[in-house]
Amino acid sequence: MPKDMTAPSTDIFERRESAARSYCRGMPATFATARGSQVFDAEGRSWIDFLAGCSSLNYGHNDPDMKEALIAHISGDGIAHGLDLHTDAKAAFLAAFERHILEPRDMDHRVMFTGPTGANAVEAAMKLARKATGRTNIIAFTNGFHGVTAGALAATGNGYHRGGAGMALQGVTRMPYDGYFGGHADTADFLEVMLKDKSGGIDAPAAILLETVQGEGGLNAARPEWVQRVAKLAKAHGALLIIDDIQAGCGRCGSFFSFEEMGVTPDIVTMAKSLSGFGLPMAMVLVRPEHDLFGPAEHNGTFRGNTHAFVTARVAIEKFWADDGFQKDLADKAALIHDRLADLAAMVPEGRIKGRGLMQGVDVGSGDLAGDICARAYDMGLVIETSGNEDQVVKVLAPLTTSQEVLRKGFEILLKAADEALAGTTKMAAE
Amino acid sequence: MPKDMTAPSTDIFERRESAARSYCRGMPATFATARGSQVFDAEGRSWIDFLAGCSSLNYGHNDPDMKEALIAHISGDGIAHGLDLHTDAKAAFLAAFERHILEPRDMDHRVMFTGPTGANAVEAAMKLARKATGRTNIIAFTNGFHGVTAGALAATGNGYHRGGAGMALQGVTRMPYDGYFGGHADTADFLEVMLKDKSGGIDAPAAILLETVQGEGGLNAARPEWVQRVAKLAKAHGALLIIDDIQAGCGRCGSFFSFEEMGVTPDIVTMAKSLSGFGLPMAMVLVRPEHDLFGPAEHNGTFRGNTHAFVTARVAIEKFWADDGFQKDLADKAALIHDRLADLAAMVPEGRIKGRGLMQGVDVGSGDLAGDICARAYDMGLVIETSGNEDQVVKVLAPLTTSQEVLRKGFEILLKAADEALAGTTKMAAE
Amino acid sequence: MPKDMTAPSTDIFERRESAARSYCRGMPATFATARGSQVFDAEGRSWIDFLAGCSSLNYGHNDPDMKEALIAHISGDGIAHGLDLHTDAKAAFLAAFERHILEPRDMDHRVMFTGPTGANAVEAAMKLARKATGRTNIIAFTNGFHGVTAGALAATGNGYHRGGAGMALQGVTRMPYDGYFGGHADTADFLEVMLKDKSGGIDAPAAILLETVQGEGGLNAARPEWVQRVAKLAKAHGALLIIDDIQAGCGRCGSFFSFEEMGVTPDIVTMAKSLSGFGLPMAMVLVRPEHDLFGPAEHNGTFRGNTHAFVTARVAIEKFWADDGFQKDLADKAALIHDRLADLAAMVPEGRIKGRGLMQGVDVGSGDLAGDICARAYDMGLVIETSGNEDQVVKVLAPLTTSQEVLRKGFEILLKAADEALAGTTKMAAE
Amino acid sequence: MPKDMTAPSTDIFERRESAARSYCRGMPATFATARGSQVFDAEGRSWIDFLAGCSSLNYGHNDPDMKEALIAHISGDGIAHGLDLHTDAKAAFLAAFERHILEPRDMDHRVMFTGPTGANAVEAAMKLARKATGRTNIIAFTNGFHGVTAGALAATGNGYHRGGAGMALQGVTRMPYDGYFGGHADTADFLEVMLKDKSGGIDAPAAILLETVQGEGGLNAARPEWVQRVAKLAKAHGALLIIDDIQAGCGRCGSFFSFEEMGVTPDIVTMAKSLSGFGLPMAMVLVRPEHDLFGPAEHNGTFRGNTHAFVTARVAIEKFWADDGFQKDLADKAALIHDRLADLAAMVPEGRIKGRGLMQGVDVGSGDLAGDICARAYDMGLVIETSGNEDQVVKVLAPLTTSQEVLRKGFEILLKAADEALAGTTKMAAE
Repeated sequence: MPKDMTAPSTDIFERRESAARSYCRGMPATFATARGSQVFDAEGRSWIDFLAGCSSLNYGHNDPDMKEALIAHISGDGIAHGLDLHTDAKAAFLAAFERHILEPRDMDHRVMFTGPTGANAVEAAMKLARKATGRTNIIAFTNGFHGVTAGALAATGNGYHRGGAGMALQGVTRMPYDGYFGGHADTADFLEVMLKDKSGGIDAPAAILLETVQGEGGLNAARPEWVQRVAKLAKAHGALLIIDDIQAGCGRCGSFFSFEEMGVTPDIVTMAKSLSGFGLPMAMVLVRPEHDLFGPAEHNGTFRGNTHAFVTARVAIEKFWADDGFQKDLADKAALIHDRLADLAAMVPEGRIKGRGLMQGVDVGSGDLAGDICARAYDMGLVIETSGNEDQVVKVLAPLTTSQEVLRKGFEILLKAADEALAGTTKMAAE
Repeated sequence: MPKDMTAPSTDIFERRESAARSYCRGMPATFATARGSQVFDAEGRSWIDFLAGCSSLNYGHNDPDMKEALIAHISGDGIAHGLDLHTDAKAAFLAAFERHILEPRDMDHRVMFTGPTGANAVEAAMKLARKATGRTNIIAFTNGFHGVTAGALAATGNGYHRGGAGMALQGVTRMPYDGYFGGHADTADFLEVMLKDKSGGIDAPAAILLETVQGEGGLNAARPEWVQRVAKLAKAHGALLIIDDIQAGCGRCGSFFSFEEMGVTPDIVTMAKSLSGFGLPMAMVLVRPEHDLFGPAEHNGTFRGNTHAFVTARVAIEKFWADDGFQKDLADKAALIHDRLADLAAMVPEGRIKGRGLMQGVDVGSGDLAGDICARAYDMGLVIETSGNEDQVVKVLAPLTTSQEVLRKGFEILLKAADEALAGTTKMAAE
Repeated sequence: MPKDMTAPSTDIFERRESAARSYCRGMPATFATARGSQVFDAEGRSWIDFLAGCSSLNYGHNDPDMKEALIAHISGDGIAHGLDLHTDAKAAFLAAFERHILEPRDMDHRVMFTGPTGANAVEAAMKLARKATGRTNIIAFTNGFHGVTAGALAATGNGYHRGGAGMALQGVTRMPYDGYFGGHADTADFLEVMLKDKSGGIDAPAAILLETVQGEGGLNAARPEWVQRVAKLAKAHGALLIIDDIQAGCGRCGSFFSFEEMGVTPDIVTMAKSLSGFGLPMAMVLVRPEHDLFGPAEHNGTFRGNTHAFVTARVAIEKFWADDGFQKDLADKAALIHDRLADLAAMVPEGRIKGRGLMQGVDVGSGDLAGDICARAYDMGLVIETSGNEDQVVKVLAPLTTSQEVLRKGFEILLKAADEALAGTTKMAAE
Repeated sequence: MPKDMTAPSTDIFERRESAARSYCRGMPATFATARGSQVFDAEGRSWIDFLAGCSSLNYGHNDPDMKEALIAHISGDGIAHGLDLHTDAKAAFLAAFERHILEPRDMDHRVMFTGPTGANAVEAAMKLARKATGRTNIIAFTNGFHGVTAGALAATGNGYHRGGAGMALQGVTRMPYDGYFGGHADTADFLEVMLKDKSGGIDAPAAILLETVQGEGGLNAARPEWVQRVAKLAKAHGALLIIDDIQAGCGRCGSFFSFEEMGVTPDIVTMAKSLSGFGLPMAMVLVRPEHDLFGPAEHNGTFRGNTHAFVTARVAIEKFWADDGFQKDLADKAALIHDRLADLAAMVPEGRIKGRGLMQGVDVGSGDLAGDICARAYDMGLVIETSGNEDQVVKVLAPLTTSQEVLRKGFEILLKAADEALAGTTKMAAE
């Protein structure tokens, strides 16, 4: 280890890192190591992690089995970078994914490895749908988040991110997500009426693109029956159904895919984040054979197929998804999370629990309050973040492998932070 | 290692991997390990590597120092995924990059870590230029390659890739690259005339985006004076100069940046491929402070900042760029490569050497011939690929660390392959 | 008159006119003369006109006063084509328009003469709103019709017309018009929610563009309170309110502008169709002084300012709008039309009266039936057309000057045609 | 004539006409009448007209035969507005156009009447080409002018007009017009190279759109061999050739179409301006039968088919194009114009004659000088305007019917104005 690593100063970040840096502003520690659900900074201070790399670390930090396999691979001079050549590591991942994920779910999808980011998977999916249908228009939803490269950003609802484009984005029609207008109306009705109307002004869609739970959008969870209706509308109008399972997939909602129990078979699924299991960059697109229409390298990218990630991703699949033990365990944790969040929601006037599975949180009504709670939690040893169009949702994205004990500890901190934040709010209001 | 990895069959690729897979079609081995400039398949067959992950492995496979540092990091439960939080690994990389790369070159650029693909870096650069100038139009060049996500693809010239978009791309004006019309005309003249013309129909550009050597485009190398003129035109017209150094940077052209000796200071530089040194996904945008205008997370991405890559990238910088030894060595190798390619060019009617530094090749006049040469080379133990708008250029992208001995061996195979291919062509022509 | 005009054959249309011709397919007569509310073919057959050039002949055919003024102008070698130079005819029109239209309504709008088509006025209005706000997005509504040139077509809802573009259209977000989802929901609520939502994915609008009655869209009439809310939303979000009064203006809804009694002041109004009074091509954009931002000729066009049209348009303003007599008369006729359409609606199962003023019709539930009724009416001497997304609305657009007697005659034919068509339908259903 | 027309004040224009008004700023008279090549203001002052409504009055003002036919039509209650119904006037125009224009030139084109502006014809042509080919991209040229509605504006080169869009325009690739880089290079070579290049980044074009003489662009006249090569390139690449003959057609270049003697048959021709003969709004698209692909009303517009214009357009065709007398006369006048312009060019350092036929002018090297000359000419009784990307070309667009005597008088004024302007310039330079 070189000398200048022993006492890293944050000056270098101020001096040289772009103003686009973000999380480090609210959580300014310099992190050094991490195990399971805990992270440590260089001075040995520790935090419980209820953020999990925004759901990229569903199996926790440095899972020992993945770690062992990865070190073995590197030690043995395993391929690190293999373009899209055949490698033993890729074959092993594919075999495990087929055996434990695709076959048990009767999915005949092909696996397309894209550049290892969620945005890239979404871009590939959107392009594929347009190529397959000869249509341009893709329907996406309010509060959806699909990435910030130009194609994906057109589908992303967030105005701050959209503004970063510096230009008008194209090719996407926005429709209201499930529950968008409260209980008054089923937004699938609107979608149906507008698609059927010959003068509705919505061009025939290449695809309908959705998250079953909108992570960045505020933990909005679509009802299964809404997803089913949207799936039927897609089919009826010759559009592909793309489910973006980047944040909600890999067990986050309680099953491997977020849509498993909804009775729909997406034409295309995008995956990234926790796919590698270890937090390594990896992304892929699952596509039904009849839509697997890109020619060789028509959509390409130097890092499509990250070999290190294949190694850990294979272990993740084999360790957690070869039988139903893990999934059962998730149900218990989801219940615990829901209970504790109910406590939090009860503390806040009009607090509302949102999301499902291990992707839940509480809408506390204002971004200021949610931010205050998270800032106080960080000071007390809990890494946690907000989401939502006003950053008004305190979002729990703990590793799925977090023990009930650590979950409880984390919630203790969270509730204390909320208590203090609310007291502060009350105090301020009183002054 | 699980049982099903011992004898990986390629059936799984046929059965489950998308038709978009590409390199594996011409090089069907299942690769397993690699060291330096050699790759090995599971049965122990070996190849000299003149492709180097399309210039992503400039320091060879599994460099022992990077490998050691990476294993130490993983073994010690170093952070694997850290979003854009401060980590010791990131600090160390930034410090090394500042000390050995930016400061000696008087570059005051800030470093923006984007999603770890070249395309993402290009997308960020294009967005930034648009945001900074309030303009939409970006000038890109014939035969440029900048990635296949929607924003970057608009700047990419390749029609096959563009066709994959399934829609009209926008925001880019195409201009002829240096030498595009042969010796008859300086294309910078055209650019100047069209930009100056109030009715030229070229909207005021946010940026001019170029590679100093077009790797995918056929190893077209721009003259320094052309790049200088383009830089001046950019400045005169209020546009940013973006140099895409994803393939040509990291020493590939003989110096760390491809533009170092050209007397230009780009406003923005995009980097990826060999940046991590080890073939791990990593990308970044260098941007002058006055244009570092994204707000926090305005351009974001889960994998921005790949911590494993920071570890190996730091070693790469410190090992190869702390003094000028490596760079001097590159000059010798570039000369050797040029000599051997001259032999190849001499074998082919109208064969032409293209490119510069360690990014050279021979235009053999037809894609069929170039493909035949590469296929024969593969069969004889050399991994090498074509590039160019007709795939007519045999392209040598050996690791920069390849010894002169291995370079010579590789060229022996290449020349033999060319000899046989030409004999076959002649034979066919004679029949 | 040349010899070949004496007995014009329709062969020439078959042989030489484009397949894009339309009305002549269902109404194949060769028309020759017209007076008031009657048209005549070359053989002397006559029709009552309930189409009025799609509301371009609100004052009937060949109004004697306009005719006299126009002949005087031509006879005296008055300017026929004057670009946008000052002419006495333009001055006189402007003076009359200011005195009788703008001043009494407290409108400080400037008058911009565009190319003499409604589409051109809409294009100018959209460009102006974008220039004024620096934003691209324009909100338009389901079933809106604003023209078929690329900018206006983006705002037009009709899928058949949109398909004619041969490309994806851009710059417009579609929202549901008043009453679009029936009684269940106020669509202004949706607009409000989506505009307010920072992640709603609707970019900040340059303008909201609407017709108060959608003529082509099926005579959908917006409620005044809906228009008021939309106007407030526009203001609150920094968008201009553009009212497209091309079909609904010039008295068609009972007052000069369709929005007069709604309590809104549009930032921009587009006018065409009946503006010249005589059916001559003329269009203009009314724009509040603070948004009158085009530089000289920034939006131009050879035929902006049709001098012959200025002559007749002045007469139309002075004859019909100098006092309130005409407007009072319109109220009586609107009542008569409503009564007769009630009779028609009653004949049809689920028949519904639509529209308002002298822009009413009946939704007969199917395009086939509506088409059948109009075809039979034509055969019996009444020119009338359908509108709506399924062509399901029989639309009455009689000249506003049609006498009550002629209106009654026209309705006699219409009701008889409906009776026969329904009998035919019943008969077919019975068979 | 109403009282307030007797002494029209220009106050009304200041008060109520949009800032977009343009020609009236430099020529502030209020014009009232016009005959042949002369225009008169209300006070009886007269000007010779070398502008001719920007080539909309090729047969002069108020041609007596057209005038007589138009008055007869109006007096007899001829149809004024007929949508796209069959009318006797349309039949007569089509018959005359077929007999005297299309048949003698072996043109099998169909006639599509669009909204009566050149922009609308161009929009229709572009849409048609896209629909016919299934491609989006249209190639247009530097300094081309095709109108300012969004589709046409994308093809227009002028930056001032483009800026009026308030948004990025799309669907057009810009290429250099003939002679754009001076004598150094044939720009058709560039077009060929870029179209052939699979990585040239120019998407396969739906059409190539050009003017044979660029009127607004500065009287740039393409060589016939260049137009022929472009026509061949269009064909070779599956693109339609669209010739925009709006300004250069109707005899302006010496023959009815500007391309007649070039040996090319455009797939589509756009016409407007002088088509009606009388300065009335009229436009049309000529399209070869195999590309006549719009369905009924797919491209529509209320004023498609201006009946008054049909009446005068028929007379224009029969009077001027039934035999070759007029065309022969044009050749003489073109020679006279060329001679006089040679005198003007000789007065100006580096003055250059531009254009051809009766569409010629002199590039005087600066917009200031050209503007000064035209302003002085106006004061001396000559209406004349500039064109070009710097407004540096003094452009003569006299009615084709102007007698040699009047032409000479006009040139006397023009040369005197130039003399004074140059003296002024010299004087200023001397001071």
